[in-house]
Amino acid sequence: MKIGWIGTGIMGASMCSHLIDAGHELTVYNRSVEKTSALTAKGAALAENPAQTARGMDVVFSIVGYPSDVEEVYFGDDGILSAADPGSIVVDMTTSSPDLAIRISRAAEEHRLSALDAPVSGGDVGAREARLAIMAGGDAKAFEKVKPLFEVMGKTIALMGPAGSGQHTKMANQIAITGTMIGMVEALLYTRRAGLDLDALIDVIGSGAAGSWSLNNLGRRIAAGNFEPGFMIMHFMKDMGIALDEAKRMNLGLPGLALVESFYRAAMGRGMERKGTQALFEVLDNLNALR
Amino acid sequence: MKIGWIGTGIMGASMCSHLIDAGHELTVYNRSVEKTSALTAKGAALAENPAQTARGMDVVFSIVGYPSDVEEVYFGDDGILSAADPGSIVVDMTTSSPDLAIRISRAAEEHRLSALDAPVSGGDVGAREARLAIMAGGDAKAFEKVKPLFEVMGKTIALMGPAGSGQHTKMANQIAITGTMIGMVEALLYTRRAGLDLDALIDVIGSGAAGSWSLNNLGRRIAAGNFEPGFMIMHFMKDMGIALDEAKRMNLGLPGLALVESFYRAAMGRGMERKGTQALFEVLDNLNALR
Repeated sequence: MKIGWIGTGIMGASMCSHLIDAGHELTVYNRSVEKTSALTAKGAALAENPAQTARGMDVVFSIVGYPSDVEEVYFGDDGILSAADPGSIVVDMTTSSPDLAIRISRAAEEHRLSALDAPVSGGDVGAREARLAIMAGGDAKAFEKVKPLFEVMGKTIALMGPAGSGQHTKMANQIAITGTMIGMVEALLYTRRAGLDLDALIDVIGSGAAGSWSLNNLGRRIAAGNFEPGFMIMHFMKDMGIALDEAKRMNLGLPGLALVESFYRAAMGRGMERKGTQALFEVLDNLNALR
Repeated sequence: MKIGWIGTGIMGASMCSHLIDAGHELTVYNRSVEKTSALTAKGAALAENPAQTARGMDVVFSIVGYPSDVEEVYFGDDGILSAADPGSIVVDMTTSSPDLAIRISRAAEEHRLSALDAPVSGGDVGAREARLAIMAGGDAKAFEKVKPLFEVMGKTIALMGPAGSGQHTKMANQIAITGTMIGMVEALLYTRRAGLDLDALIDVIGSGAAGSWSLNNLGRRIAAGNFEPGFMIMHFMKDMGIALDEAKRMNLGLPGLALVESFYRAAMGRGMERKGTQALFEVLDNLNALR
């Protein structure tokens, strides 16, 4: 298939690379052009803007930074929507707002395009190893057409409902993580204060009712004093911000999410934005270490 | 070995039964004597009080309700400590306070006994299937002597440190659970409000970075509208209360634990004490459903 790909950061470059390996004809675009070089070296054509990336394609994917970037890529001058061929499918894989996904879907319809929102989880490792979870929203027919491409990039692939449902699913994913993170971090703080070994704790509780991906993976990093990302706090802040905006729109009170977001916000204020999300441990440790 | 067993509730009865099956000579005691009948039918001798259960034994186990019950069983008239043979080992498997475990350990020493604190996780199913995690604190020599008995009851067995360390480990376990519970419950509330299917959500996010035992087990019950215990809210309240007391003693601020405990406290006020811990979903649902 002829595929346009917008956004070749750490996630996008790996995902796009899998599509090239699967024999598809890729045209790529990235705001910082140097991040496309590994892909053009593999045979991808280079476009100068989103419109050029979209024109004449069967499917156009985007995975960029913030909802404002998605908006620009879709609705801006030289954006996707005005350029994509009628009948083609546009797929935003950025973690972005459900609301924006619905707006894109409506605008796509006006341009006789189909739109899917399809954010992912699994991180850079999941992208590299084609083991992402891909959570989609939108039209079922468009989803079925794109599914073979998703299967090249990911392992768990689901159409969750109409436009916006992929983003809602990703938000639920992030909300669940806020809980596992604070529970894990407080358990480890308590453990250290009690004088016990953190790895020994994870060994004994990690596979039972207290077990979580966060404890068994990020907890190990905390035990080793490793606060490098993984997933950066600044990116988690973006996601929690979208979730809180949606919850506000729904008039849905989520006190756990609000609490955890406030501690990550404090981390931002302490210049920890590029640390891994497990550095929440340092925030609560500092909270308890005022002198 | 000659073993005394105090407390034959749902957990204790299964654990004690495994020891009988392994060929040990058991003497049992329970405040409500009818709960010992299945064990005496299997050949256990019946004692009339903790002292009688302890006298002449190699090892005495207890697994009762609240720290106040533990205190009574150890320090009361007809308690374990004044009756147990010098050189024998006393093992409290109740989830109780680290502080009390340390007091028992000191008193045991005065009576020339060894004491272990060894609470468990894994619930009634884990007890029945001898798959408990057993987290111990106390003297290493005593632990090595009792370990073969632990292995009859559990699967993951660890000596975590000196007296109190088993209880501290269990508290860390419960603190981690408070986080996974609120994250899971808020994620499911958000999901339902967004109009998506709860089981479909768990299918797609349950094995990734948002995954936890709580989501994959209790989340399924919520999706099915099943709020039966599992683990009763009133028992979780006891454990969170001990954890908060210890955190207070340590001057350790654990805001996530405090928040979640306050919602479970509200559940108690709503007469939900015998519902499963997953009924936190109903508390937050009700919070958002005020009319």
